[in-house]
Amino acid sequence: MDLKNYLGQRAALVDKALDALLPAEDTLPATLHKAMRYSVFAGGKRIRPILALAACEAVGGNPQQALPVACALEMIHTYSLIHDDLPAMDDDDFRRGRPTSHKVFGEASAILAGDALLTQAFVLLSSPATCEQIPAHTTLQILHTIARCSGSMGMVGGQVVDMESEGKQVDFPVLEYIHTRKTGALLLASIQCGGLVGAADDGAMAALTAYGEAAGLAFQIADDILDIVGEQTELGKDVGSDLARGKVTYPALLGLPAARERAQELKEIAVRALAPLGAAAEPLKAIARHIVDRSS
Amino acid sequence: MDLKNYLGQRAALVDKALDALLPAEDTLPATLHKAMRYSVFAGGKRIRPILALAACEAVGGNPQQALPVACALEMIHTYSLIHDDLPAMDDDDFRRGRPTSHKVFGEASAILAGDALLTQAFVLLSSPATCEQIPAHTTLQILHTIARCSGSMGMVGGQVVDMESEGKQVDFPVLEYIHTRKTGALLLASIQCGGLVGAADDGAMAALTAYGEAAGLAFQIADDILDIVGEQTELGKDVGSDLARGKVTYPALLGLPAARERAQELKEIAVRALAPLGAAAEPLKAIARHIVDRSS
Repeated sequence: MDLKNYLGQRAALVDKALDALLPAEDTLPATLHKAMRYSVFAGGKRIRPILALAACEAVGGNPQQALPVACALEMIHTYSLIHDDLPAMDDDDFRRGRPTSHKVFGEASAILAGDALLTQAFVLLSSPATCEQIPAHTTLQILHTIARCSGSMGMVGGQVVDMESEGKQVDFPVLEYIHTRKTGALLLASIQCGGLVGAADDGAMAALTAYGEAAGLAFQIADDILDIVGEQTELGKDVGSDLARGKVTYPALLGLPAARERAQELKEIAVRALAPLGAAAEPLKAIARHIVDRSS
Repeated sequence: MDLKNYLGQRAALVDKALDALLPAEDTLPATLHKAMRYSVFAGGKRIRPILALAACEAVGGNPQQALPVACALEMIHTYSLIHDDLPAMDDDDFRRGRPTSHKVFGEASAILAGDALLTQAFVLLSSPATCEQIPAHTTLQILHTIARCSGSMGMVGGQVVDMESEGKQVDFPVLEYIHTRKTGALLLASIQCGGLVGAADDGAMAALTAYGEAAGLAFQIADDILDIVGEQTELGKDVGSDLARGKVTYPALLGLPAARERAQELKEIAVRALAPLGAAAEPLKAIARHIVDRSS
């Protein structure tokens, strides 16, 4: 399959839906809605929404129906980036080559734009328009999955431990704790929620979950490797920035060759997990291959 | 009725439920869960949860069933206080006589504790245990009401406009915009969601909504008045702190006597709105009277 074309088309679909589902820039308070849109439309690759759509497709669902869920996931991802970039956290002035939210709108507005995006995700997930397309019971399962994976025992929890580990010697279990939560949890939620929209049966959900766990970790290792060897344009942040900040990474802990080997292994596990889903899972497989192979 | 006793009993019920529904302090990451609990158990009066329980009761529902919703409302209220107190926002060192979250745990942890509390509210609202007690369709309505009232066109929106108005001359429409959103929206949501749990019919929901709109505004005016004339112990913050900060308030705009008159008027409107609900609405009426009268 032509993955580049596929990713481009899906990202465009997601962008259009995000534009329709976010309050307009001139909706009061305009500064807040401007700030929310500034970060949502800052050139993200829409990996989480695309995974949700592809997972829905992989179990025989209609990806169009998964669009609101996909957009909610991107809003949560964006809020997490805005807050991560704050002076009190990573203190980043740029993301994907553009000034970060607090550099443009000020710190208070950046905090509030993040808060509002997180909340807007739940407005969207529980909105009558979304609920018309998905059974209420399934919508609540989706909501619960996304909230759990984003909260204190998911993404936020991972960020806390990552922050506490900066500049410290950490061991492998802590590294896995951070990555399965800080980035892995929302990636897994994206895949599982796509499956839920597609009314996946237990076997299909198990396949998606196994894929999501392996692929999520593989993506993180690939990102860590790119932080060392990548091009700045590909990475969207300064090469070596993790190292400079004393962040714990796979290559730092395992060495570069072993980290690469682990990423390849996880990619194989992820692809094999999808075997029961047949040809409909081709896009998910291609995404896992692409993300790991660009780092090797 | 003995309101003091009623409020004490209900607050104790809410505190117990919050303790059961929040992750334990030693759940990893422990610092995060400690920070979440520190602010939730910082001596709040539990007005929002109590209003939700009382509204449920007023329409003939079982207040016990509204406890998870009541706790979710308190988590959202607490997150908003943590973020409002941040150095980039109001920069408050104390709240209710205790050091604020960022003074105890640092700024990054306070931001993340707020994020996690907001998210935990939605974990709770969509949890299987909550969903067992309330029909899925109703749960989604509750979730949507709470999310909308908390988001960019509710509480966060009100906070943004409040912040932008500091030290500026603002007119009455802006003042009402701020108050109906910053504090009024979540108070109204609390009352409406209590009604939803209690399976209120359209007439009862209309009565609760009319009560909630009037009472929400009355509470805010009462708070503004107490900021000028109150005792520090009653207020839980420095007397005159709004004034010092150049915050726009009702007494500042209308003068103290007219502000008091407006609060009394709104109290009457709120109490009258509940007439169709009969004796079951006594606690809601008593709450409105109590909150307004302590400022006059």
